Amino acid sequence: MKNFRSDNEAPVHPDIMQAMVDINHGFDESYGYDHLSRQLNERFQQLFGCWCEVLPLTTGTAANGIAIALSTPAYGAVYCHPNSHINVDECGAPEFFSGGAKLISVPGEQGKIECDVLNRHLENSGHHGEHESLPSTISLTQCTESGTVYSLEELKAFKKTAKQYGLAVHMDGARFANALVTLGVDAAEATWQSGVDLLSFGATKNGAMMAEALIVFNPAYNKQIKRLRKRAGHLISKMRFVHAQLLAYLDNDLWLNLARHANQQARFFAESMRNNRHVQLLHPVEANEVFCRLPVDLINDLEQRDFKFHRWPGEKGVIRLVFSFATRASDTRSLIEAIDRF
Amino acid sequence: MKNFRSDNEAPVHPDIMQAMVDINHGFDESYGYDHLSRQLNERFQQLFGCWCEVLPLTTGTAANGIAIALSTPAYGAVYCHPNSHINVDECGAPEFFSGGAKLISVPGEQGKIECDVLNRHLENSGHHGEHESLPSTISLTQCTESGTVYSLEELKAFKKTAKQYGLAVHMDGARFANALVTLGVDAAEATWQSGVDLLSFGATKNGAMMAEALIVFNPAYNKQIKRLRKRAGHLISKMRFVHAQLLAYLDNDLWLNLARHANQQARFFAESMRNNRHVQLLHPVEANEVFCRLPVDLINDLEQRDFKFHRWPGEKGVIRLVFSFATRASDTRSLIEAIDRF
Amino acid sequence: MKNFRSDNEAPVHPDIMQAMVDINHGFDESYGYDHLSRQLNERFQQLFGCWCEVLPLTTGTAANGIAIALSTPAYGAVYCHPNSHINVDECGAPEFFSGGAKLISVPGEQGKIECDVLNRHLENSGHHGEHESLPSTISLTQCTESGTVYSLEELKAFKKTAKQYGLAVHMDGARFANALVTLGVDAAEATWQSGVDLLSFGATKNGAMMAEALIVFNPAYNKQIKRLRKRAGHLISKMRFVHAQLLAYLDNDLWLNLARHANQQARFFAESMRNNRHVQLLHPVEANEVFCRLPVDLINDLEQRDFKFHRWPGEKGVIRLVFSFATRASDTRSLIEAIDRF
Amino acid sequence: MKNFRSDNEAPVHPDIMQAMVDINHGFDESYGYDHLSRQLNERFQQLFGCWCEVLPLTTGTAANGIAIALSTPAYGAVYCHPNSHINVDECGAPEFFSGGAKLISVPGEQGKIECDVLNRHLENSGHHGEHESLPSTISLTQCTESGTVYSLEELKAFKKTAKQYGLAVHMDGARFANALVTLGVDAAEATWQSGVDLLSFGATKNGAMMAEALIVFNPAYNKQIKRLRKRAGHLISKMRFVHAQLLAYLDNDLWLNLARHANQQARFFAESMRNNRHVQLLHPVEANEVFCRLPVDLINDLEQRDFKFHRWPGEKGVIRLVFSFATRASDTRSLIEAIDRF
Repeated sequence: MKNFRSDNEAPVHPDIMQAMVDINHGFDESYGYDHLSRQLNERFQQLFGCWCEVLPLTTGTAANGIAIALSTPAYGAVYCHPNSHINVDECGAPEFFSGGAKLISVPGEQGKIECDVLNRHLENSGHHGEHESLPSTISLTQCTESGTVYSLEELKAFKKTAKQYGLAVHMDGARFANALVTLGVDAAEATWQSGVDLLSFGATKNGAMMAEALIVFNPAYNKQIKRLRKRAGHLISKMRFVHAQLLAYLDNDLWLNLARHANQQARFFAESMRNNRHVQLLHPVEANEVFCRLPVDLINDLEQRDFKFHRWPGEKGVIRLVFSFATRASDTRSLIEAIDRF
Repeated sequence: MKNFRSDNEAPVHPDIMQAMVDINHGFDESYGYDHLSRQLNERFQQLFGCWCEVLPLTTGTAANGIAIALSTPAYGAVYCHPNSHINVDECGAPEFFSGGAKLISVPGEQGKIECDVLNRHLENSGHHGEHESLPSTISLTQCTESGTVYSLEELKAFKKTAKQYGLAVHMDGARFANALVTLGVDAAEATWQSGVDLLSFGATKNGAMMAEALIVFNPAYNKQIKRLRKRAGHLISKMRFVHAQLLAYLDNDLWLNLARHANQQARFFAESMRNNRHVQLLHPVEANEVFCRLPVDLINDLEQRDFKFHRWPGEKGVIRLVFSFATRASDTRSLIEAIDRF
Repeated sequence: MKNFRSDNEAPVHPDIMQAMVDINHGFDESYGYDHLSRQLNERFQQLFGCWCEVLPLTTGTAANGIAIALSTPAYGAVYCHPNSHINVDECGAPEFFSGGAKLISVPGEQGKIECDVLNRHLENSGHHGEHESLPSTISLTQCTESGTVYSLEELKAFKKTAKQYGLAVHMDGARFANALVTLGVDAAEATWQSGVDLLSFGATKNGAMMAEALIVFNPAYNKQIKRLRKRAGHLISKMRFVHAQLLAYLDNDLWLNLARHANQQARFFAESMRNNRHVQLLHPVEANEVFCRLPVDLINDLEQRDFKFHRWPGEKGVIRLVFSFATRASDTRSLIEAIDRF
Repeated sequence: MKNFRSDNEAPVHPDIMQAMVDINHGFDESYGYDHLSRQLNERFQQLFGCWCEVLPLTTGTAANGIAIALSTPAYGAVYCHPNSHINVDECGAPEFFSGGAKLISVPGEQGKIECDVLNRHLENSGHHGEHESLPSTISLTQCTESGTVYSLEELKAFKKTAKQYGLAVHMDGARFANALVTLGVDAAEATWQSGVDLLSFGATKNGAMMAEALIVFNPAYNKQIKRLRKRAGHLISKMRFVHAQLLAYLDNDLWLNLARHANQQARFFAESMRNNRHVQLLHPVEANEVFCRLPVDLINDLEQRDFKFHRWPGEKGVIRLVFSFATRASDTRSLIEAIDRF
């Protein structure tokens, strides 16, 4: 079985698993006050080159939900892409965590909110006062759900809008490592220096077992984040095992190396398809996901050959391929050959 | 001042005010158990020709909120028009009452959801299981926010969709009387016989002081509605004064006569404009609201002559005129003359 | 029928009804921006001798709910008396409005929280950090559910506690006028000068039809109160009729005169019972409510003579008598005679 | 360091860690649809000897929260012990998950709700109709927060009450294994046969890393549990690692053996103290926790000798000792000796 269905289906990277095994002896303080916790905060502050508050979690949905709850009151509005994970894949988690905030879809090509559309929407808001939800947060997915990456210029346009209208900028970074490798800048420039107030920092898709972190860059949004985690049932008692994952993930640039591999596989596949007349790439391949349109016969053929991937709902002939840290180059080559042979 | 801004700015109809004065003597049971309450239920059951549960309220937003809370779980989805009141004018009330349900915009011309678009959306739902909000409710505004009226045929198409996907149909009838007069059918045919499970029955815009009612036609959605009203702070202690308004509103067809007048004024105005080269009607005028595009100079001129109306946000040169039970024919004529003189 | 069941069962005072009739002509701005709104704010600021924000509403439950939502985050705790209205008579409204805040019962005699018990509780809080709800609000009912009145000294003890622990003080003043008359001080001294940050100012029980107001004295809690009202469905479109009630209520000290009458009737009754060997008063009679224990035969006898009152649930032989602005002195005397004759 | 502070501070049992390592190869379906999931359901159904729905989770607070959300509407009430974890240690999680349900404390000795007190409360409920929260759920902690265990007879008394009033019975079994070992019956008899509808099945405190499960015995409460998990951010993508923990926990009676050891250590300690004049045991020692009162000098002395335990807040001289699967017999003996030497 050659699996291109999701980076979520990959195993745990051996180094991260080993880190969990290594700390599994003796007693340690529970509920986040173990011997690794201070280290963790320092490690992230070093990474981002600034003060930041780090809230370790086990899912990206929890990170997103708490981020939205921090920046958006129950009567507030969040601007997001129609296809964003928070809008269509979290079964109402942001609404739940925030107590009923409204997610407002702002469309755009390639999975990206078009900043001009957002600006026009905001210009026309506020005429109806308290009848309208309070504009509160812009939520950007980086990488996007289409496998593309917001450039620094694009991020800074949102920063400007956020400043003008007093909004927070949240970044859903479930695949943040993949985006960072593509941008080729440091973590600071990709986030707070480009206007990001709150980052959902993902590690699970890129090698961890269950480890994410909410990073709060803007102290204005740093209110009672631990209580928000606790009342949502997200305070793991043996938290040291989450901390250990995150530390191992960051050690020796493991996270960047893993993401680089995944991106390379995706790019290699995409480049191999450029001249294949059967395959149409739907979006620029800027990270570890490829969306393409294929003849249905070819799709069937690949499935019979035991390749796994997602047929995209609602769009006939469209499939999504996800390349992960665990994707073997030989599997990528097999896939290319199977398509080329068609 | 000739006011075409909103039917909400009209006073209370004298008969309704008098009904409140008439019952203002002596003690009566509080919290909805007064001597009028039984009468009220019977009166509405007679009107709709069926069993129904009636929950008197003071605002349409409360009626809508409780309706959504009855039909939509916290992890559910409501399909509504992008411009619908519940989506853009209630500051997140449906989300609040339901505990976080997601409102999904389904577009369509003339303020109406296009049923085909909804059907396509529903066909493509469910592929992602628990990650998606549970499709739960279709909410239709009757009259729509564009002053149009869903025909019985249109309603029945939604009934079919609702049945196929197990959804509830909610009707936001803030201007239900105006729609009913236009449809020319009885209240049963306009509602439950055409698939409506829950009706927000409006009276305030059409002559009451503060009186609306949530009507539950489908017993499946009739759970603990009194507790939903109470915990939202909507159980008025001296409830008899809400009951009295609703009874007076229905007595002697007052409600239909008032709506008929309002509709007639709107239609008269619209017909007078047909040949005016300055004025472009934007939607069919099917009830008591008229949306039209005018030269900005004309708009300024009308305002200087003390005509009141809404300049529509985001669309230059577009105004909304609302005709109510209290609109004097002479004021309508003055408006027509002022425009014709331009 | 001589009704001592609840001041909620009384009618509307004629002056207040007349005020509603008087403004019922012509158009006026809706949703709280009518010609009375500015006047209302000024009138309350004059009454309380300070800046304050006034949010007119139609129920006390809504006022309490919004107050709690302003002062208590979803992960916060509210300290209240076990018998307080917010704790046992609002079907979870404070929890609903606040998004899940926890109400913690702090007992005490005569319907009053015992401040020492609260202090001990707070001293022992905080050892478990984020696992505990955040202490946020003290909610005092004035008059209490037992018909007693917190003295200024008692209020100031809570003020001190609130200051020490960074808590807000909310006063549920559904019968605030009755308390104020008893205290014999001005409205400022009874509220913000004694530490009250948020007041649910009741008018309905004391002569209005449906009119209450949330008064925010402390600007720290003055965030988006209009949006909190709107999203809960409590923004009445024809708000001028709520404003008119509140203005008439305050005009010429009507509210104080009405409360004084109610209190006098209660006190007259209580004093008449002092030497009646059948009747045991359960609490000091400090406002317009009397709780007493009577022989069950006497209770039955009174009911047969058409006196209405509440048999108190869970306590055999205990009844509650409420005296209101509408209680006729002759009815009070009849009641006394009927008891004395037994 | 000899740690008796909490079973949460223990490491992961090596067999459970090994199970996670063993499955860490290759791709597997994410979000709960991996190759272990079917096995897991069957394993639990076998254990409980009945149909049941199993929802794997990572924290007990999440299990409790979803349980309450299933059995209690937003306007409902949950009866629990004042000291119960859901009431004082979850920062409002049950209120959050349920959308605002009210937790009502019902006291009783030894950490147990006294069923008679609950019955009296329920008898006196309902007189005030919709003003009261709807009685919905009895939540029992097994073992209790005082280290005691409800007997089968006690459970059946609650079953009777629940049946009479139409309530659900939830069992918070964070230490369920410890209770089961003490009861000496099978899992069926300790739960659904004794009236339990919903069980929070704990594994983390007794050897797992982060693994709990909500078990639904009563199909009436089995609604959309997967959506409740997802929208709370508790659907782990690499869920197989939670499944593996639970399976290893149940394999070869590991869970019962571990709990038996912990209980034995606690009992051994308690029995050794029976004749120690310095030490007063506060509750029957029925599982793995011991609460005792000691001279403060002795407490200080133990701490200096590097014994770790909790000083109980609010009660001077009271400490809690928790014995876990990882407690070495030699440490227990050291503790006994250190106390005896005093």
